[in-house]
Amino acid sequence: MQLTRAADYGVRVMIYLAAAGAESRLSLVDLAAATNAPVSFLSKVLQTLSHAGFITSRRGQSGGFRMSSRGRAASLLDVIEAIDGKICLNVCLVPGKSCGRKASCPAHPIWADAQRAMVQVLSRAGIASLAAESMELTLDSESRQPSSSCQAETLAES
Amino acid sequence: MQLTRAADYGVRVMIYLAAAGAESRLSLVDLAAATNAPVSFLSKVLQTLSHAGFITSRRGQSGGFRMSSRGRAASLLDVIEAIDGKICLNVCLVPGKSCGRKASCPAHPIWADAQRAMVQVLSRAGIASLAAESMELTLDSESRQPSSSCQAETLAES
Repeated sequence: MQLTRAADYGVRVMIYLAAAGAESRLSLVDLAAATNAPVSFLSKVLQTLSHAGFITSRRGQSGGFRMSSRGRAASLLDVIEAIDGKICLNVCLVPGKSCGRKASCPAHPIWADAQRAMVQVLSRAGIASLAAESMELTLDSESRQPSSSCQAETLAES
Repeated sequence: MQLTRAADYGVRVMIYLAAAGAESRLSLVDLAAATNAPVSFLSKVLQTLSHAGFITSRRGQSGGFRMSSRGRAASLLDVIEAIDGKICLNVCLVPGKSCGRKASCPAHPIWADAQRAMVQVLSRAGIASLAAESMELTLDSESRQPSSSCQAETLAES
């Protein structure tokens, strides 16, 4: 029951792009370095984020990736679900699937409550505000670049 | 980000054993039928629950599995973590692992909050009270057997 690496990198790159500003167009290599993600892996994540309409991409020498207005309005939950699909804490919560014993199942409402509680926190966290916070947090750093998320080093180690 | 089948079966079997009563000793075959779990798979789950002290087992003709007082006092969270290990929504929340960028990471506190919200719901749901609820919910059923959890049919289908 853990976030996938793809979703984790997706969140990192979204925060980084949002902090870089609406006019900044960044290359795959730059984004991979900033988020400490493998280039080929991040490339697929960016493709998914592009399909979801959260970022735009342009090929060529002046090309790269840029945050869209839709991406700026997205929440952590939106980004995670665009990459991993709908969060379902248990199979009985998968949308469209019916459970014949739901009415007599004492655990079902607990799974639903636990999922609701988690989803509520993730849906309230907006990418734009996290990016602003990221910039504040790194204001004292030498580079004055927006920070990638904290998982970078842990993932690299694991 | 989904509960494993082992943990799901673990919760089902714990609720079933608790509802069966402190004196009931049930066989692996009976428990597998009641929870709609594959016998060999459930056998491993029961072994883990036994190691955690939530159930006791006895071999032989009058043998079987029985709920322990520790099991009766357990929560859904206790059962899940006994089987799947500590819930960690993201790698940066794994206990004992340090994250060098925690102080400048805007996403880290959100992962922690989301995990806390989910864990709180699961820790408040006690096996004993779920078992009592299960018996109430199935009071009108012909068999008057405690119901296995609602995931049974969905899992069997998938």
